[in-house]
Amino acid sequence: MAPVRNAKIIFNQPLAGLPEPGKTTTYDTSSTIDLDAIPLSGGVLVKVLSLSVEPLTAGLMMGPNKPASIPLPAYQEGQPTFGFGVGKVLRSENEGFQKGDYIVSPVLEHAEYTIPTHLNFLQKIVPEPGLPPSVYIGAAGMPGQTAFYGWKEYSKAKKGETLFVSTAAGPVGSIILQLAKREGMKVIASAGTDEKVKLVKSLGADVAFNYKTTSVDEVLQKEGPIDVYWDNVGGSTLDAALGNAALHARFIECGMISQLTDQTGNGANMKNLANIVMRRIILSGFIGNDPFLLEHWEKEFNETIPKLLAKGELQYVEDRTVGLEHVTAGLAEVLVGKNMGKKIIVVSEE
Amino acid sequence: MAPVRNAKIIFNQPLAGLPEPGKTTTYDTSSTIDLDAIPLSGGVLVKVLSLSVEPLTAGLMMGPNKPASIPLPAYQEGQPTFGFGVGKVLRSENEGFQKGDYIVSPVLEHAEYTIPTHLNFLQKIVPEPGLPPSVYIGAAGMPGQTAFYGWKEYSKAKKGETLFVSTAAGPVGSIILQLAKREGMKVIASAGTDEKVKLVKSLGADVAFNYKTTSVDEVLQKEGPIDVYWDNVGGSTLDAALGNAALHARFIECGMISQLTDQTGNGANMKNLANIVMRRIILSGFIGNDPFLLEHWEKEFNETIPKLLAKGELQYVEDRTVGLEHVTAGLAEVLVGKNMGKKIIVVSEE
Repeated sequence: MAPVRNAKIIFNQPLAGLPEPGKTTTYDTSSTIDLDAIPLSGGVLVKVLSLSVEPLTAGLMMGPNKPASIPLPAYQEGQPTFGFGVGKVLRSENEGFQKGDYIVSPVLEHAEYTIPTHLNFLQKIVPEPGLPPSVYIGAAGMPGQTAFYGWKEYSKAKKGETLFVSTAAGPVGSIILQLAKREGMKVIASAGTDEKVKLVKSLGADVAFNYKTTSVDEVLQKEGPIDVYWDNVGGSTLDAALGNAALHARFIECGMISQLTDQTGNGANMKNLANIVMRRIILSGFIGNDPFLLEHWEKEFNETIPKLLAKGELQYVEDRTVGLEHVTAGLAEVLVGKNMGKKIIVVSEE
Repeated sequence: MAPVRNAKIIFNQPLAGLPEPGKTTTYDTSSTIDLDAIPLSGGVLVKVLSLSVEPLTAGLMMGPNKPASIPLPAYQEGQPTFGFGVGKVLRSENEGFQKGDYIVSPVLEHAEYTIPTHLNFLQKIVPEPGLPPSVYIGAAGMPGQTAFYGWKEYSKAKKGETLFVSTAAGPVGSIILQLAKREGMKVIASAGTDEKVKLVKSLGADVAFNYKTTSVDEVLQKEGPIDVYWDNVGGSTLDAALGNAALHARFIECGMISQLTDQTGNGANMKNLANIVMRRIILSGFIGNDPFLLEHWEKEFNETIPKLLAKGELQYVEDRTVGLEHVTAGLAEVLVGKNMGKKIIVVSEE
């Protein structure tokens, strides 16, 4: 076969503010690839299907200022960007992979085709019948695992208790609220637009509100106290949750977006920290890929969650944009909270 | 026998600032008691030996502003004050108690003699040979239990790890630092005067410093990172500990004095909260008399700690003042941090 186009996203310059297509990155269509003949040197040729864009991606765009907490190298100027993605093996010279296999990788090149350098980053998946491969970078993948592992390890959820979940329309929060409803909890959910509030209600939240127009504290005073708080934001929302926590509440600290985006450097002004002692609250910080969490919960996740998603008993919410060229614009959307559920850039449908 | 004096501390008026003898309370020597003839109505007559003064006592002096978290009634004007204390039974009409028994109570009247109204608050103790009864309101009593229960339940201490303990010269902190040393940890300890720093070093702390003259953050940067933080103060000290926490650190939240005494109402300015997520820290708030903690650890405490204290393998630090009339002045000392170890008012030596 003749060579075909192999478009790529090339990193141009470190972030100053929000990422901008054409400035932060270039959509480069100048490369071609001969899918039949290109040498694999013992590796695999992957057709990229879907890419995840998420706040972590922005961290990789910060050059020398990349947060040390991200265990990946910063993007290099003139080189393709990369991130979580799902693809299909077109050819393989490695016995671990066969033509037709689906793979996910946290460092998949933002390209139409790629020959991954480090095969140990590739994880083979067998999509549940009825479940698109893209779900394996969303509810059946890292965000879903983060939600499930943290929930199982730390929530100690009991029927009849009350959960408050922030960023409930996001890829993690939308799973959390459904897991809590399945356990018979009352769910209070916050999101940042009225459209997201509607989505969150449709997923089963008992109380849903727009935190930009409604006081978190007032809602929790009325609908709380809360037994479990799933925290994605920190700051004043965390403080309001502490102020409305029940005795022996469990706070699951999954993210603190408010602090990561704090430009003032002044930190968060917390008035209710003493409730940690007085109400005997446990706050558990975690990240989803901690080895001990995988050991405890990976098997149960793999055996249950993809099936529930395929049957529709758990809903996944994807915000899909078609076209590799939209990676950088999609990231900007996520950073200002415009996405509804998991933001997916579809590079190819199959 | 002829009636004898029964001096009492009488509550006068709710706190405005620090408690003042003669203003907040009166030392009243006008009562007498006939120890042989006074009717007990099925109760017991107790000679008060030692009284505890502690921040909680100040809470009971706040009248209608008593913090709701203190599960005791506020002091009533014109009535005797009360608190944790140890006494000896002089006479008993109750089958649960005999002449010569030692008892502790959280609501022992601040008097020379008393006939407790609610016998269910009285707990009989059998002092370990060589251990003065007063230790049962200190290291062998509530503060010691608080330290032991919290340490056993939440520290997950490992040999070679590093502990940071604030208010290390206090009745709880001084036990914590010794428990940590017994487990082979490196101990960093802070206290509020140079004299306390000396005491803390004599108890075995590897690093001890005066937080009023030395930056907590600088010490922890040099001597950390810390695996366990025993927090008695909250606020900026907690923030510095978060900034210097090791991966998977455990923070045991025993008290937040800084917030309880915060007069501004502005709360604490926290810059390092995001480390809870990034360094996967668990913060556990607790109070020592939570029923589940008693269930887990009371037996082991009773079987081990008094013996260790009697043998001198654990040291208790008492700051003793002799004379019932010094209760209120002693409380003021505790509130400004003048006490070294557990503040005890000795009413009678036996």
